[in-house]
Amino acid sequence: MLKINFDSLYEIDSEHGLPVSIFADHADYLAPTLEKIEARGQGFYKVIDDESVIDEIETYAESVKGWYDDIVVCGVGGSALGPICLRDSFVGTFDKGKPKLHVLENIDPDFMSEAVETFNLERTLFLIISKSGGTPETVAQFMFFKDLTEKAGLELKSHFVFITDPSHDVSLLRSIGEDAGVKMFDIPSSVGGRFSVQTAVGYVPAALIGIDIKALNKGLKDMRDLFLSTNVDQNSPFQLACVQTGAYLKEKPMSIIMPYHTKLRQFGLWCVQLIAESTGKFREDGSNVGITPIPALGVTDQHSQVQLFAEGPNDKLIIFINVENSSTNPAIPVNINHKKTNFLTGKTFKDLLHAEQQATAGALTENDRPNITISIPELTPYYLGQLFMLFEGATAFWGEFFEINAFNQPGVERGKVLTRGILSDK
Amino acid sequence: MLKINFDSLYEIDSEHGLPVSIFADHADYLAPTLEKIEARGQGFYKVIDDESVIDEIETYAESVKGWYDDIVVCGVGGSALGPICLRDSFVGTFDKGKPKLHVLENIDPDFMSEAVETFNLERTLFLIISKSGGTPETVAQFMFFKDLTEKAGLELKSHFVFITDPSHDVSLLRSIGEDAGVKMFDIPSSVGGRFSVQTAVGYVPAALIGIDIKALNKGLKDMRDLFLSTNVDQNSPFQLACVQTGAYLKEKPMSIIMPYHTKLRQFGLWCVQLIAESTGKFREDGSNVGITPIPALGVTDQHSQVQLFAEGPNDKLIIFINVENSSTNPAIPVNINHKKTNFLTGKTFKDLLHAEQQATAGALTENDRPNITISIPELTPYYLGQLFMLFEGATAFWGEFFEINAFNQPGVERGKVLTRGILSDK
Repeated sequence: MLKINFDSLYEIDSEHGLPVSIFADHADYLAPTLEKIEARGQGFYKVIDDESVIDEIETYAESVKGWYDDIVVCGVGGSALGPICLRDSFVGTFDKGKPKLHVLENIDPDFMSEAVETFNLERTLFLIISKSGGTPETVAQFMFFKDLTEKAGLELKSHFVFITDPSHDVSLLRSIGEDAGVKMFDIPSSVGGRFSVQTAVGYVPAALIGIDIKALNKGLKDMRDLFLSTNVDQNSPFQLACVQTGAYLKEKPMSIIMPYHTKLRQFGLWCVQLIAESTGKFREDGSNVGITPIPALGVTDQHSQVQLFAEGPNDKLIIFINVENSSTNPAIPVNINHKKTNFLTGKTFKDLLHAEQQATAGALTENDRPNITISIPELTPYYLGQLFMLFEGATAFWGEFFEINAFNQPGVERGKVLTRGILSDK
Repeated sequence: MLKINFDSLYEIDSEHGLPVSIFADHADYLAPTLEKIEARGQGFYKVIDDESVIDEIETYAESVKGWYDDIVVCGVGGSALGPICLRDSFVGTFDKGKPKLHVLENIDPDFMSEAVETFNLERTLFLIISKSGGTPETVAQFMFFKDLTEKAGLELKSHFVFITDPSHDVSLLRSIGEDAGVKMFDIPSSVGGRFSVQTAVGYVPAALIGIDIKALNKGLKDMRDLFLSTNVDQNSPFQLACVQTGAYLKEKPMSIIMPYHTKLRQFGLWCVQLIAESTGKFREDGSNVGITPIPALGVTDQHSQVQLFAEGPNDKLIIFINVENSSTNPAIPVNINHKKTNFLTGKTFKDLLHAEQQATAGALTENDRPNITISIPELTPYYLGQLFMLFEGATAFWGEFFEINAFNQPGVERGKVLTRGILSDK
């Protein structure tokens, strides 16, 4: 299992740190809070038990193997961030293999025009992903590519898959899909967009590019079992939530998500949506709460954001994510004899990467900046599954601690209404 | 020139907004603050006057045209963010043309191993970018690729360019470059890394992939002239700094940089370094200050961060960046007859994009969330140059307002010392 090192919290000044007893002190909250979560939204942790979904997806992916050069997700928010995170975690940064997974999570005119020029429709599969089936950006993209596909004399059913709510009343894609014989996968009603990476939303794109979704699902389940444990020493999501809460109450409204691994950069953006949209809410008394999540990347951001983390206002909790092993580990050949290079003699890139993570954490601790380090043994679908559920569970706990609904997003509705108004007035 | 719309600040509740008179009220600070900036660090706005640099770079780029398939920047922080921003702003998202610009801003072992497998050394040019010449990550990468190049029997001078400080005492790359006959470009001593996009750091990679660096430089100069104006109504960087300061003093320590254009996403990350590293400082009295910059992207982040911006704590200034025109503007073909799609009839993707930006700004204003909108007529090197200097100038003003040195980064030194210690102990 992944491990979390909380030591720095206990070492720093108590104005900013937390006591060693923090988890024991809050153990009594664990079982009752789990009951509240169960009552409010258990979909996200129960959906992973339905393994027939995985079989169906793997069978489908196998059946279309070799048919497509490009898999194009049309989706935004929860329909995009999971697929991008899965791709970036397991497809090489410079990979030129096929099929290639693209995620169209925006609608700039030039971006859409370039997409048209890029994809050979005959060898392209569009995955239309929208829980409600009515996300304007996604529906606009769908109508756009539907038009092109029809004009090219191609059948919709060979070039589209819909991933959407199972109900006709909810999703306009349902009857279109049925009429055209398009393959459809469900996003269960009980699972919100930002928790949907563990449904067809994440699994279908992942399976199409060869990611082991069974292992991913196993990682989710193993962490879910810890999440449901009433033993505070076992429950990593509860521990993370306690620390985020403690830091928040000590005037640290920001959480930095800082993996030391290029392929996990997008995991930070997945976390941003999860945390921002789940925690940023009006409470019943009219007050506002919310953790502001901020993505960072080690070592890269040591040369960008770390100055602010170390010497700016002490208003952040820094969450490092460390990957212990890599599949390769090239040596640094020290072929320059100079005082600035000699310390690298006999070292590998992994040595340098890990030393920099430890040093950055150490320097922050010296400055009384609270930080924790999550470690996974290696970057695999299994451990990424654990990471997803760790943050999902922690977010669910956080919502109950602050008495808000972590599973809705009322604050984005007003913008949608105004958008319709502006377009209608034109 | 770019325009900034501040109206929402005047419309919202005065607890969170700012008065219409804000610029006039602070006009007396303008000239004296400019004098302080001139005394502290004028390099960043004077360096752009040396047009011989541009001629030299363009001549060099022309002379190697067609030689390389891949241009690989080895650099991090200020040596990476400018080149990435320039590439992403002007190279198509799905572009497969050559030469292709890659920026290696991290050192994970797997990432380095993949790089080796990806690049055909005979057709690759490595740009080693390090102001000090001693950035451990960049030097490690350099030694790694130097080793491979030599083992392949290739000459360093045909496959490397160094971009570094002109002094041998500062940069260990200087004497290596001279001995090997490597082409070198200067990063003037007076220009810090996060302001170096307007030196060879940005200009060499940009010129090699065909970006018009003369136009970029012209945009920088035109905004610089406004920055040096003592007329408060002309000085956009001063106006931006006043607003960031006013928001900061009203307990909004975070600035969101939210372009509504996929190709400007990386501009947000460039801003993050500029603002975080320049403003996050200890003051002389031991207190901490600093704006926490947060990147966002419209419309994408409407489905991720906007819930938090709208309903979470009112602790953010939101800075939208709007691009008025696009080179293409495809229509949205409304080929589904449904109440959720009819409002799109007769609309283009640009209409939808702009309506969503206006609606998001409007919804935030209704919730008393301070926001401003910067507009550029089109995304060109000229207007990107203006954007760079707008934020650089504002950051310089902000530093003087808070009596810190915006041009140093003492808080990252400790981590470097600890890194050396950890590696030496192994």
